[in-house]
Amino acid sequence: MKARVTVMLKSGVLDPQGEAVRHALGALGFSGVEGVRQGKVIELDLAEGTTEAEVDEMCRKLLANTVMESYRIEFP
Amino acid sequence: MKARVTVMLKSGVLDPQGEAVRHALGALGFSGVEGVRQGKVIELDLAEGTTEAEVDEMCRKLLANTVMESYRIEFP
Repeated sequence: MKARVTVMLKSGVLDPQGEAVRHALGALGFSGVEGVRQGKVIELDLAEGTTEAEVDEMCRKLLANTVMESYRIEFP
Repeated sequence: MKARVTVMLKSGVLDPQGEAVRHALGALGFSGVEGVRQGKVIELDLAEGTTEAEVDEMCRKLLANTVMESYRIEFP
């Protein structure tokens, strides 16, 4: 089974990487880009029967820094 | 309007970052993690009326390296 974890910086946290992308898009002539946030996505290939609670534990212990980042778990 | 771009390494391309995460999850006692691929997600805040074609052009010109990476555009 597959699980997808998306980790984004929390909204109050400055995102210099996203800001750099926004600036670069403007320099390339794309107007109308009002904001950019960049995060990471982790696709897990898991043994059958792995529960959402286990994936949540993986996020809290390793995949996300819950002080600064929020995460979302999906089973596509 | 919002757009979300997900960029992943193509399946034939080695992903050392994902491999490191897989190893670390195993070391933390999570068995049954068979594979991990790590990519990035870019959330764009766009002016109303921006077309999917424009977002596709942003991906090809800046956000993804189409030699090694594939991308997916969503409008959540």
